[in-house]
Amino acid sequence: MNIAIFRSKVKSLILVTFVILLPFGAQAAHPNLVITAADVLEMRKAITKPGQFSKAYSDLKAQVDLQVAQPIIVPVPKDGGGGYTHEQHKNNYQLMYNAGIIYQLSQDKAYAEYVRDMLLAYAQLYPTLGLHPARKVESQNPGKFFWQSLNEAVWLVYTIQAYDLIYAALSVQDIASIETKLLKPVALFLSEGQPSTFNKVHNHGTWATAGVGMAGYVMNEPEWVEKALYDLEKSGKGGFLKQLDELFSPQGYYNEGPYYQRYALLPFVTFAKAIENNEPQRKIFQYRDGIVLKAIDTTIQLSYDGLFFPINDAIKSKGIDTIELVHGVALAYSLTQAPGYLDIAKQQDQIILSGDGLKVAQALDKGLAASYQFNSVAFGDGSDGKQGALVIMRSQLAGDQAVLFKPAAQGLGHGHFDKLTWQFYDQGEEIVSDYGAARFLNVEAKFGGRYLPENESYAKQTVAHNTVVVDETSHFNGDVEVGNANAPVLHFFETSELGTVSSAKIDTAYQGVELKRTMALVNLAELEKTIVLDLFDVVSSKAHQLDLPLHYLGQLIDTNFSLAVNTGQLSALGAKNGYQHLWLKGRGLPKQGLAKVSWLNENGRFYTHTSLVNGQEEFLFTQLGASDPNFNLRNEQAFVRRVKNNKQHRFISILEPHGEYNPGKEYTLEAESQVTELGYSQQGEVLLVDITIAGLPYLIAINQAAEGSIKQDFQYQDRSFSINRRLAVFALNDDEE
Amino acid sequence: MNIAIFRSKVKSLILVTFVILLPFGAQAAHPNLVITAADVLEMRKAITKPGQFSKAYSDLKAQVDLQVAQPIIVPVPKDGGGGYTHEQHKNNYQLMYNAGIIYQLSQDKAYAEYVRDMLLAYAQLYPTLGLHPARKVESQNPGKFFWQSLNEAVWLVYTIQAYDLIYAALSVQDIASIETKLLKPVALFLSEGQPSTFNKVHNHGTWATAGVGMAGYVMNEPEWVEKALYDLEKSGKGGFLKQLDELFSPQGYYNEGPYYQRYALLPFVTFAKAIENNEPQRKIFQYRDGIVLKAIDTTIQLSYDGLFFPINDAIKSKGIDTIELVHGVALAYSLTQAPGYLDIAKQQDQIILSGDGLKVAQALDKGLAASYQFNSVAFGDGSDGKQGALVIMRSQLAGDQAVLFKPAAQGLGHGHFDKLTWQFYDQGEEIVSDYGAARFLNVEAKFGGRYLPENESYAKQTVAHNTVVVDETSHFNGDVEVGNANAPVLHFFETSELGTVSSAKIDTAYQGVELKRTMALVNLAELEKTIVLDLFDVVSSKAHQLDLPLHYLGQLIDTNFSLAVNTGQLSALGAKNGYQHLWLKGRGLPKQGLAKVSWLNENGRFYTHTSLVNGQEEFLFTQLGASDPNFNLRNEQAFVRRVKNNKQHRFISILEPHGEYNPGKEYTLEAESQVTELGYSQQGEVLLVDITIAGLPYLIAINQAAEGSIKQDFQYQDRSFSINRRLAVFALNDDEE
Repeated sequence: MNIAIFRSKVKSLILVTFVILLPFGAQAAHPNLVITAADVLEMRKAITKPGQFSKAYSDLKAQVDLQVAQPIIVPVPKDGGGGYTHEQHKNNYQLMYNAGIIYQLSQDKAYAEYVRDMLLAYAQLYPTLGLHPARKVESQNPGKFFWQSLNEAVWLVYTIQAYDLIYAALSVQDIASIETKLLKPVALFLSEGQPSTFNKVHNHGTWATAGVGMAGYVMNEPEWVEKALYDLEKSGKGGFLKQLDELFSPQGYYNEGPYYQRYALLPFVTFAKAIENNEPQRKIFQYRDGIVLKAIDTTIQLSYDGLFFPINDAIKSKGIDTIELVHGVALAYSLTQAPGYLDIAKQQDQIILSGDGLKVAQALDKGLAASYQFNSVAFGDGSDGKQGALVIMRSQLAGDQAVLFKPAAQGLGHGHFDKLTWQFYDQGEEIVSDYGAARFLNVEAKFGGRYLPENESYAKQTVAHNTVVVDETSHFNGDVEVGNANAPVLHFFETSELGTVSSAKIDTAYQGVELKRTMALVNLAELEKTIVLDLFDVVSSKAHQLDLPLHYLGQLIDTNFSLAVNTGQLSALGAKNGYQHLWLKGRGLPKQGLAKVSWLNENGRFYTHTSLVNGQEEFLFTQLGASDPNFNLRNEQAFVRRVKNNKQHRFISILEPHGEYNPGKEYTLEAESQVTELGYSQQGEVLLVDITIAGLPYLIAINQAAEGSIKQDFQYQDRSFSINRRLAVFALNDDEE
Repeated sequence: MNIAIFRSKVKSLILVTFVILLPFGAQAAHPNLVITAADVLEMRKAITKPGQFSKAYSDLKAQVDLQVAQPIIVPVPKDGGGGYTHEQHKNNYQLMYNAGIIYQLSQDKAYAEYVRDMLLAYAQLYPTLGLHPARKVESQNPGKFFWQSLNEAVWLVYTIQAYDLIYAALSVQDIASIETKLLKPVALFLSEGQPSTFNKVHNHGTWATAGVGMAGYVMNEPEWVEKALYDLEKSGKGGFLKQLDELFSPQGYYNEGPYYQRYALLPFVTFAKAIENNEPQRKIFQYRDGIVLKAIDTTIQLSYDGLFFPINDAIKSKGIDTIELVHGVALAYSLTQAPGYLDIAKQQDQIILSGDGLKVAQALDKGLAASYQFNSVAFGDGSDGKQGALVIMRSQLAGDQAVLFKPAAQGLGHGHFDKLTWQFYDQGEEIVSDYGAARFLNVEAKFGGRYLPENESYAKQTVAHNTVVVDETSHFNGDVEVGNANAPVLHFFETSELGTVSSAKIDTAYQGVELKRTMALVNLAELEKTIVLDLFDVVSSKAHQLDLPLHYLGQLIDTNFSLAVNTGQLSALGAKNGYQHLWLKGRGLPKQGLAKVSWLNENGRFYTHTSLVNGQEEFLFTQLGASDPNFNLRNEQAFVRRVKNNKQHRFISILEPHGEYNPGKEYTLEAESQVTELGYSQQGEVLLVDITIAGLPYLIAINQAAEGSIKQDFQYQDRSFSINRRLAVFALNDDEE
């Protein structure tokens, strides 16, 4: 109660402040959004000295010089996404923004005049426009320059900054034209004109509130800032702060996954910085325990070897050098001075021309970068952090390794039906893989560059992932809404020098079926090896066919059981839910005991997947590419472990990286799996996996007890053991326990 | 006549010299093979100073220190290649050689004693040995330590150098034991004991003569040197000099291709250096116009982006950093001081501890490296350079590009049946590819690490290459002997700033069928583009089915004609000669005009292959992997242009690199082919290809006239042209011609 009262006082105070400032607004300092007048003074000094900042300046200036030598083109809107007028308007806002910066730094009025002339051209055009002709029928959010208002909001975010940058060079008359004919109407169109988008707690809303809020700062419309922060009714049910509350988990994880997280990041980073510069008393960077910084940092954590983990609809070559994260890292460094961000900035190899960018450039010039620390983390999903989690396990014991384990929420429309799936990375390569999105971005011949039909028919389907498929049907029967409403439950996560372990389950992916998976990336210090442990329990009220695919990247080297291979003819594995895209290349039914599949990745390392089987798990070897009339799919490999007509089954396996293939230097080391024994048992709440690897017997214990009773004692082979954490690793030939 | 007399005088002179030297032989300087006593003095100085040489020394010393701390193991020979005793004896000779060097540089007698003890152990073992138990039955060349005498000869090459390096530390008694019980018997076994191998003009003979010849220098057996140089009968019909005469072409090309050339190089480089150090009057490096240096240089030229062109049985990851070429480059630099070799040495990143290695290290330390110049060359094949040619075309106009065109000879048992095939490379990647060898070197699970059965059944077959297959039968009907006896004829080769062009033919690959191919890598300077032009003429006395495959690396993006794709079931394209390994994924019959196939390579560039078709060329799209029960093949893609029942056909096509796909930065440029017109005509001896590309019309003329009448005038579209070289490129919208 007290807090609420206090907060409402603060709000009043701010309003009062604004009222006082208003008359002086026109004389307020420009620029003062992401870049302030004080920043500009520092930046002007910096470009006179050699260094990364002045180099970035010269590079951008050279590019802008070429562009401003061309005539200004502000076409009447006509084309949809990717079309000519669409791309031209996108180029225009980027150019205005860049030219504005060059104006501030060079103090050459020609750049300001170019931006002014383009703004005047827009001011002339805008009043003549209706809704965009290529808008979607019955769309709630059409634009005028663009087919959808998302692009229009992005246009405003850039253009208002460009305007702010050249403001000082404008005549009163130009200011009046630009503001009354263009910028104010655009801001009103995007706020009052589209309440559903503006108030929506969604990435589209973030762009709209960022644009409108910054317009409020520049054009002395404090009410617009209030509405941007708290929604059109200033209720706090929507608006930028609510978006910060709901679109990220408490740790800063964005529900749709890293590919979309980095995209979502930019308006947050941009508007927050503008708020801080205009109204530091709002303490925006402390908001929700520093959520903006957490969101930036989490985006970095969600990468491996420079690329984002490609969960959901992700294009796999997207990584930390994406421009959105360049902005994010500049801000993160400016806020923290943590030298690890400089390490990331170095990999990004791009300097932003801003006050924060200058700080990064100068620190890099001074050689202050230090290794950024990638951690093993369970990122709780959902705004409360309790809608499952995205789990990352890392180890540096035997090369740079990572397991991504995904008991995460659906992640809206771009989410895949892949509850409890996993991926494995080693030595810079993907080993156990996720297809990512089926899309060739902007390649016209490939379905106009949009998501391919195979994105729905294959990439999103469960069988395209490394998790259990029941009766050849995808999770939630492929229904996004059901998926969004039902997240897995993270049972536990723990990381220590022994490794990282996590367990999670979901009982809503299939009716009457509980899927529970426990995974661990275990360090075997004595051998300088790691293994991935995978225990997948399926418990069902009725009998089903259970498939557990593993998509691997590399050349199949060996299996320790015989295969019946289809050498003369191939057929698809199934008819729907992604199965229609898999050629069945061969099958084998290993006897009770250990079933091994080895492959060689192009990183030159071997990987052996060893399963403990009961004689009923069939292994189906597949290649992607059936039902693919347009050659849209990559022809990747998988094997599917299948049990039929089962109510209950436990898939037990370990993945073991080993050896090296170096035909260039003509040597091959340890091409064969070193695992000779694998057993599984249970003692009360403790799962026990015994492995003999390279002659060394190990006992790996995973404690599944409830939080309160974490200490467990147990017996194994007449010896007493005790575990008081989640994971314990015992080297059994050692006298010590 | 005069020359012959002169040569015979020189030989007499040398013999006389030896006779004079003999009595003093025992006091001759040691070491004096590849490394001389004078080299050692320089090397000892160098290791006291920081630099690449002292670093290489410390690295090797650290490694040797670990090894000499282990007990000496000289096992009784038992295992074949890859087995324990085989590998142990290989490790031993390498260790003796390394320890010998460390002894010379550190002057620490412990190293010499280690080598001495190992040599004494060998001296004790050798007299007890018969032929190796794992030798091949009825083999002409068994060893005693090894299953084949090739390894035994390599053993001697290393061991005699190790002996020479520690000679100064040995007692007279040890010298007597080692020479009489071990080194002399081994040398006699490899020479007198195996005349057929020793006298053979073949790589095995080179190792034997190198070992025996160096043994002659070290142990004062000048007759051995004579025999090593001129064969056992000193006839000159065999021996090292004959090998230099016959195993390389006049330009230094080795008939089996670069993968084997780099392997063959080492004994040549080693023994030649020893000859130079012992008998400079033989002028071995001037022999055959400097053939040793040419052979080294050609090996480098036969690479692209650090890897050898993978023709014939080549493992594709083998490149210029191979140890044999590290030795070769050190010698090449020592002989020439050409700074380009330092550029290669830099990429090799390995310093040899020898006098030549020191020169390289010191020059690298001084920063003397300059770009090595890769050229467009036709390497004449065969000892006379007239058995066809291996043609390399390069361009730097639009990225680092290379065409390999192969009207080369068969290349003995490792040769592939791929007359007139080609490959294309761009931006560091293979674009139009060759499968190379089907082999996983030393991977036991893959057919013991040997050449896979699929090497014969697929990789060597014609359909695995980018050249015409008649009636689904490989060239020479797959008969190596016929292939070796019948090389293609190189018609012409020319390179200029316009591009590189070559034409060749063969009429022995199939009875009654002439295959003639003309290829050009053409620079279109106005567009900063290159294209590859490919004209393949087949003329036959009878009607045949003609297939022209193109194996491409990348994802199919588009075809401009419709395809009937096998979406539900796949079958193999044929039953034998490699066809049984190709799944038929789809087929299309483009109408008369231009038929385009576009793909996207992982280098991010698009490639469009445009054929001018007559409406009868069917395009069959394939994927490798049928009849492959052990998953031994990579699942690569191809399309096969097929005409049926034809006596005469001309395949006309161009390959066009274009655009860029950058999903990380979210842009795609020029994803579509810019070729809008392609025509072909002939004016007398001049082939004319007219192309309109990116709106610019070009006329490309290729002059096929006989050497004597190279200047040709012709008319095209009422304009007069003249060509006085092989290739002319006319930009037709230009008023100038």
